[in-house]
Amino acid sequence: MRILSGVQSSGRLHIGNYYGAIRQFVQLQDEGQAYFFIANLHALTTVREPKLAEELTRDAAMAYVSLGLDPKKAVLFRQSDVREVLELYWILGTVVPHAHLERAHSYKDKIAKGISPDFGLFAYPVLMAADILLYSPDFVPVGKDQIQHIEFARDWAVKFNLTYVPGYDPQDPEGKEKGHAPGILKLPAARVQESTATVPGVDGQKMSKSYGNTIELFGEEKEIKKRIMGIKTDSTAVEAPKPTENAPLYDLLKLMLPEQRFQEADASWRAGGKGYGEYKKLLLEAFHENFGPARKRYDELKRDPAELERILQDGAERARAEASQLMQRVRRAVGVP
Amino acid sequence: MRILSGVQSSGRLHIGNYYGAIRQFVQLQDEGQAYFFIANLHALTTVREPKLAEELTRDAAMAYVSLGLDPKKAVLFRQSDVREVLELYWILGTVVPHAHLERAHSYKDKIAKGISPDFGLFAYPVLMAADILLYSPDFVPVGKDQIQHIEFARDWAVKFNLTYVPGYDPQDPEGKEKGHAPGILKLPAARVQESTATVPGVDGQKMSKSYGNTIELFGEEKEIKKRIMGIKTDSTAVEAPKPTENAPLYDLLKLMLPEQRFQEADASWRAGGKGYGEYKKLLLEAFHENFGPARKRYDELKRDPAELERILQDGAERARAEASQLMQRVRRAVGVP
Repeated sequence: MRILSGVQSSGRLHIGNYYGAIRQFVQLQDEGQAYFFIANLHALTTVREPKLAEELTRDAAMAYVSLGLDPKKAVLFRQSDVREVLELYWILGTVVPHAHLERAHSYKDKIAKGISPDFGLFAYPVLMAADILLYSPDFVPVGKDQIQHIEFARDWAVKFNLTYVPGYDPQDPEGKEKGHAPGILKLPAARVQESTATVPGVDGQKMSKSYGNTIELFGEEKEIKKRIMGIKTDSTAVEAPKPTENAPLYDLLKLMLPEQRFQEADASWRAGGKGYGEYKKLLLEAFHENFGPARKRYDELKRDPAELERILQDGAERARAEASQLMQRVRRAVGVP
Repeated sequence: MRILSGVQSSGRLHIGNYYGAIRQFVQLQDEGQAYFFIANLHALTTVREPKLAEELTRDAAMAYVSLGLDPKKAVLFRQSDVREVLELYWILGTVVPHAHLERAHSYKDKIAKGISPDFGLFAYPVLMAADILLYSPDFVPVGKDQIQHIEFARDWAVKFNLTYVPGYDPQDPEGKEKGHAPGILKLPAARVQESTATVPGVDGQKMSKSYGNTIELFGEEKEIKKRIMGIKTDSTAVEAPKPTENAPLYDLLKLMLPEQRFQEADASWRAGGKGYGEYKKLLLEAFHENFGPARKRYDELKRDPAELERILQDGAERARAEASQLMQRVRRAVGVP
């Protein structure tokens, strides 16, 4: 079984990203052959500074490797290293109904957020569909807001196959019945990732870069301590039982402590007798226990860019092997030598 | 000086195409370094049959070579053989205002003609701009209806340079003044080709594939004879002077006969004494004199597809050498490794 996933790095990762998405993505590498790309071509629609663009791409790759993505198991690569994707982007685009793109949520949402209404932003779902279809994955893990992208990719794959594969029957896309032919572009399934945890930020709102309430995964140690020690608490006295509602510190402890230690903390939290400061120290310890090894690996990679590049080049080679085979079939189908 | 031109073959070429455009295009190879491509990726927006797509691409290449394009002088290549163009298509697209494409004439015109309103058709001007900017031409010969495409390419080149080239000043695009930097994408000039001749079809209307009134350049000899002998004439008697207005036969003689022989024909035409049949034979002779060598070369190429392929591969290699240099600069500018 093949799984494909991409990430467009838009800044520094925080523990909300980890528990909300990255952790599950990394686990996918044990379910099947995972293709994992850093969408640095998509990023050009919003990042207009070359150094930042390259840095964000490397940061994302380092983060995933540090957090457990095994580049020997999964195929980790930079989108731009497999140029075939841009060929498929054009060819697929010739059968994509323009009206579909006019009703794409992501374009409207981004314009509403003030991103420049450029053609690349409008064309985004076509490149995304090419990203997916190029590797014929069985499924693509997505958040709820991404389901439309997978539906588009499926619709356009059917349209392409109907246009260019004689004997293709959408009712029998694998071409199992006599007289039917299998499609060239395989229809991916969406697997909706329920975000396993809503991670509160230090102020109690949902943790989000835009609220400035994050605890960064790979930030400076001092800054992380400051953030954790500054988690918003109420004025309950040390000896009194603490409330478990609207208590970001409690929720973060639940998320980050190992089961048994959380139960101990939970008991004393409800009984009273310890101050919030003690629980914050507990959380800080848990942060370093959970992410210490990843942070160490991250620093090592940061000091050894050649090693990161080697990993990405190796991934690109494996991805290209797959992509070039598919593109040969696509070119033949449309009549491009 | 570098000149770029592309042709999207949409069917069999006729003498209207030759006198209206091809002749002038071929002459450009003597004015400077001409890059000449067959736009087979653009063609995918309308041609959905792989065999036909490949055939039309080869036909166009054979026609131009037969009609005098010298592949040693000009760089003749298939658009799809230089994959860099699709990379530039995406990257350039990220700075193209979506609103520009909404007011593109060509999209509206094609939709009005009943062509399927697909994304590829909408995106057409972006790929065309990439086609142009990839080779940094000094100018692009265009028909009047194509001027907007060159304006777009210029606007978007400026936008790209402003976004990604520190020190770029649109008032000084070559960066000649101190503190200014030259643009990465060079602004092409449009040179509007006045169609040197309006070529009448055999029925007196403008010669056009869609009117079915063409005389094909590389058609069957029998069919060409039939077409020429069937040119619409009036009922003026043999001995009477013939009218020179609304007389497609007269116009075609003027177009196709060498100067001196046309003057003889013109004199007898105005004096009377010869029937239309004689003039038609004269025209048929002129057709074979003018296009005989090209038709012979065309047949030779048709019988030797390897020779045509060699020409196209050689052109592609020269085009790629240019394209890959530009793309290196573009990638560095935007931050894609």
